[in-house]
Amino acid sequence: MTRITSLTTRDIRARTSRFLDGSDAAHADPDYSAAYAILHTDHVDGLEGQGFTFTIGRGNELCCAAIEAMAHHVVGRDLADITGDMAGFWRSVTSDSQLRWLGPEKGVIHLAVAALVNAVWDLWAKQQGVPVWKLVCDLTPEQFVGCIDFRYLSDALSRDEALDLLRAAAPGKAARTAQLHTDGYPAYITSAGWLGYPETKVRELCRELYADGWRSFKTKVGISVADDRRRCEIMREELGDDVQLMVDANQVWDVPQAIEWMRQLDGFNLRWIEEPTSPDDILGHAEIRRALAPHGIRVATGEHVANRVVFKQMLQAGSIDYLQADACRVGGLNEVLAILLLAAKFDIPVCPHAGGLGLCEYVQHISAIDYIAVSASLDDRTTEYASHLHEHFVDPAIVRDGRYLLPGAPGYSANLHTASVAALTFPTGSEWR
Amino acid sequence: MTRITSLTTRDIRARTSRFLDGSDAAHADPDYSAAYAILHTDHVDGLEGQGFTFTIGRGNELCCAAIEAMAHHVVGRDLADITGDMAGFWRSVTSDSQLRWLGPEKGVIHLAVAALVNAVWDLWAKQQGVPVWKLVCDLTPEQFVGCIDFRYLSDALSRDEALDLLRAAAPGKAARTAQLHTDGYPAYITSAGWLGYPETKVRELCRELYADGWRSFKTKVGISVADDRRRCEIMREELGDDVQLMVDANQVWDVPQAIEWMRQLDGFNLRWIEEPTSPDDILGHAEIRRALAPHGIRVATGEHVANRVVFKQMLQAGSIDYLQADACRVGGLNEVLAILLLAAKFDIPVCPHAGGLGLCEYVQHISAIDYIAVSASLDDRTTEYASHLHEHFVDPAIVRDGRYLLPGAPGYSANLHTASVAALTFPTGSEWR
Repeated sequence: MTRITSLTTRDIRARTSRFLDGSDAAHADPDYSAAYAILHTDHVDGLEGQGFTFTIGRGNELCCAAIEAMAHHVVGRDLADITGDMAGFWRSVTSDSQLRWLGPEKGVIHLAVAALVNAVWDLWAKQQGVPVWKLVCDLTPEQFVGCIDFRYLSDALSRDEALDLLRAAAPGKAARTAQLHTDGYPAYITSAGWLGYPETKVRELCRELYADGWRSFKTKVGISVADDRRRCEIMREELGDDVQLMVDANQVWDVPQAIEWMRQLDGFNLRWIEEPTSPDDILGHAEIRRALAPHGIRVATGEHVANRVVFKQMLQAGSIDYLQADACRVGGLNEVLAILLLAAKFDIPVCPHAGGLGLCEYVQHISAIDYIAVSASLDDRTTEYASHLHEHFVDPAIVRDGRYLLPGAPGYSANLHTASVAALTFPTGSEWR
Repeated sequence: MTRITSLTTRDIRARTSRFLDGSDAAHADPDYSAAYAILHTDHVDGLEGQGFTFTIGRGNELCCAAIEAMAHHVVGRDLADITGDMAGFWRSVTSDSQLRWLGPEKGVIHLAVAALVNAVWDLWAKQQGVPVWKLVCDLTPEQFVGCIDFRYLSDALSRDEALDLLRAAAPGKAARTAQLHTDGYPAYITSAGWLGYPETKVRELCRELYADGWRSFKTKVGISVADDRRRCEIMREELGDDVQLMVDANQVWDVPQAIEWMRQLDGFNLRWIEEPTSPDDILGHAEIRRALAPHGIRVATGEHVANRVVFKQMLQAGSIDYLQADACRVGGLNEVLAILLLAAKFDIPVCPHAGGLGLCEYVQHISAIDYIAVSASLDDRTTEYASHLHEHFVDPAIVRDGRYLLPGAPGYSANLHTASVAALTFPTGSEWR
């Protein structure tokens, strides 16, 4: 028996805005931050479950407060009681009869659900002595679907269809695991293309990253057509025509504007335009996708998509070519698993959103689960990577030659170094004093 | 000059869960609550702007904290500077470069925007000495659209189209105002049909309310088909066949389940089914609407629709017959005005969500604005009313013969009695001690 005895939170913030790391058309000055849920237990080894949600500074305190408002759903419970009915646990947290009014299933409340739910997965995996990706991949198809709340999904994906997908993927699991151990999972890098970087810095970073083995790059756009063309020219000059190049507008355009703007970025062989408009605009994304298809530019979105119901519709409406779920925006790993299954059903590749503070550490597990247990495919899949802030993590994500290595430590890779917690705690840490 | 000198918040909660007032299939025990933003000024008369967002208990503290996190957008500013560019002000608050990550435009952050924005409207109207509905109806079409951020709307409604709609409605404004002064605005009542009420209480309330002049009623459903049929039978027995009867499932069904369930409630001459599934499911609502149309049951939703982008799509996709915007869920009156224009363009009646704590006080203004200045129509329109908690308001909504009377006091009708503030303040007030 491992009983959850208490819950505490941590307000962790890095002052990334000083260097414009992470800057884009909608977020000029992000301070990459994480609201941590720490589950304390009576386990003899002092096991703790740690989970976080990612934010970009102000408001991180709201996520901490929201996590604390959900403590009654975990404190005092036996871990096995929760993991024995993960879908039921998830439903109980997301359906809190009073807190749900503040969403439902979106915004601060759902970000807090992610931290809490991911802390439970971290605790479960640590107790089992395995990384989260392996814990999930070793589940039977029945156990896997037992982690998913199918409410609001049944018109697109039934429990039986999910079981069929998982059973079809089961035979090759061992071989695909061995392959990831050997080769890693393909990634792309965003670090060269933050909007606030001057041309010289972009050129320098492109050369360095290319030399490090990267062959898939993303840049921010959305200031002016001329500036965006210039940025694409610079990157193509440095990287050549054979690397993948993607662009990201971070929601700044209206639907007609996105179409018109992107037509003017034709000629750079862009793999996708990411977040061309509001993340809530399912029909708008579908229209943009139809209009840009003749130009060979595909549409990606997801880091601000609130939940599985919106992703379901994006798949039903044909809104996207790439699905970029965020490990913290949707309600933790349970909902991510549902989204992986939805994407597999509609045959759309999942290229998870990462970067930030700790998102790379999470998505390495998600992409491994997708390949080993769900889609069984690497076709046209790349997972985002950004090269900052990994030094704070006890088990940081490691990339080599542009590929994520499979993580090996037990848990969900969320633990921070003690010194990092001391430095980054807001507002008392040395980073903020 | 009226300068906003400081912002404070109030955590106001009523213990409605004791009597199951407000209970429904998703919210078993609501404690109707409001997070207040109070804008203090240097005005010689000590004018304060008050605005609130509505919640149902736990988590109200998160909304107060979110309002405080937005203080830098108003404190120190001159009121005329804000009201001179209301769209710009609204954009600055909803696009806060760090806080927007927590939404964008949804959940706790957007609920807080509503409180803050509505406090500004309250202050503006008090300064002008008029109720908010009159302040808005007296704006020129150009001033009216100057309050609206058209971002993400231009594929469905341009600024010019909005101007055309407002200009077309302008000629009859005086006559329609006079008509509302005389007759009031048509309403329906939810108070007889809370899910937790026993049969005897429902029967008694139906008789009382019918005797008071009510001819349009709503009841909660969603426990079992048998229970729901029984509830409809009881209400039809008490009310007869000529009153309007609507049902509300509060999001408990999947799409196929909603269709199957509602087919079994055929025969009660139901005007609409409200919130049959997830409020995020634009395509699902459209499918339910198509399936139920042959049964004469129409579809209403909106109290949990996060923002204008989702409403835009519900109109584009033909998801709804009635649009039930919430005065606090979307980002305050500015966004409500955008939604009224969208609905007018698509010729869908707006029947705002109300009840709760103070929502009736807000919607009386919204429906008046819709009739006088935007849609210019009362066809098939009824605004929700629930009969509890009005005693706490200085200028409560007043209904007579099932119609809202036009409010006359300056402001947005949000002020609470001093004694009510003392009693309902959480957790120190007498209601909670």
